[in-house]
Amino acid sequence: MAENMSKYKLIYFNARGRAEHIRFIFAYAGIEYEDVRVSKETWSTMRHTVPFGMLPVLEMDDVVLGQSNAIARYLARQYGLVGKDEIEALQCDFMVDTLGDLKQVLWEYRSEVDPMKKEEKKATTIKETIPFYMNKFEKIIAQNGGYAVGESITWADFAFAVSLENFELIFGKDSLETYPNLKSLKEKVFSLPRIQTWLKMRPVTDF
Amino acid sequence: MAENMSKYKLIYFNARGRAEHIRFIFAYAGIEYEDVRVSKETWSTMRHTVPFGMLPVLEMDDVVLGQSNAIARYLARQYGLVGKDEIEALQCDFMVDTLGDLKQVLWEYRSEVDPMKKEEKKATTIKETIPFYMNKFEKIIAQNGGYAVGESITWADFAFAVSLENFELIFGKDSLETYPNLKSLKEKVFSLPRIQTWLKMRPVTDF
Repeated sequence: MAENMSKYKLIYFNARGRAEHIRFIFAYAGIEYEDVRVSKETWSTMRHTVPFGMLPVLEMDDVVLGQSNAIARYLARQYGLVGKDEIEALQCDFMVDTLGDLKQVLWEYRSEVDPMKKEEKKATTIKETIPFYMNKFEKIIAQNGGYAVGESITWADFAFAVSLENFELIFGKDSLETYPNLKSLKEKVFSLPRIQTWLKMRPVTDF
Repeated sequence: MAENMSKYKLIYFNARGRAEHIRFIFAYAGIEYEDVRVSKETWSTMRHTVPFGMLPVLEMDDVVLGQSNAIARYLARQYGLVGKDEIEALQCDFMVDTLGDLKQVLWEYRSEVDPMKKEEKKATTIKETIPFYMNKFEKIIAQNGGYAVGESITWADFAFAVSLENFELIFGKDSLETYPNLKSLKEKVFSLPRIQTWLKMRPVTDF
């Protein structure tokens, strides 16, 4: 690593979760970084040492900051992954935050403890929320010729690809068949040579 | 307005809510825009015409996009409100998203319908979550000499100021007394001349 480059340390749990799209950016841009994975045991003692007690955290030079998408956006801007102009940078943010809305609904259903409420939420989520969002995403990606934003790879594609991997894990291997553009976006990202290299070396984790 | 400038239309409900920090950016930058406020009656018929059925939405030229903070960040970048460099732009995002985490906890407690759970959530929120976040925010703002990020006004200050106005409405006029730096940040933003002008002309709404 050149002397004048930041040394990055990405700290997260031993999971893909909210760090994997950040790791995809590093992999795609060919940037060295320390991929620190905190065990649950270590976490309980180190929790109070990281900003607002949350992971992921990015350490670089004298800066230590958290918030998954803030980190991803910063790195994406450094390495040319925010689209061709400020409007496309905005579109990346829009797509990532909207994907976040869908993930929030999925999380609310999956973390519901009351069995009755869980069934209700499951029904609404699967019958209404998921098709509503996925059909709209599908249409936008089709209009962009296979990209989340514009006509080239952005960090929004990475955010989608890692979420769609989880989608297939949760809802089954065939669950993206009805969304061919989303499916092929995921496959396109996953077959990028540098992402391929990362996929082969990354630790195997449940989520 | 000059011919080459975008014409902005900001569409939201008749509320401060998720649009007010955007309106503060427009006011501070001295940018003309159409402040469209949708009534509940109109909303039910127009809902399916806006991206992902959510407000706020920003219309400019041929672009129509949503997501409150994506819009605010885009405008902040246009009008020099993201700090002095990319690290400060990241710090703005970090502060705004962390404030969002606190707002999410507040919202979960306030929207809880089960009275028992609501009491539990209320206790945890007021005794633990709020002081945890507010004390950390207070410290960061003190270190920055009164700003959320760096040594000058950014859109993060606007996000804090409008949230702190709501904080005082919810928890009482004296609720910021124990957080003097947060209180003075709010007062500083609210006394900026162009923000003063906006405060005098904005519609009076409950939230």
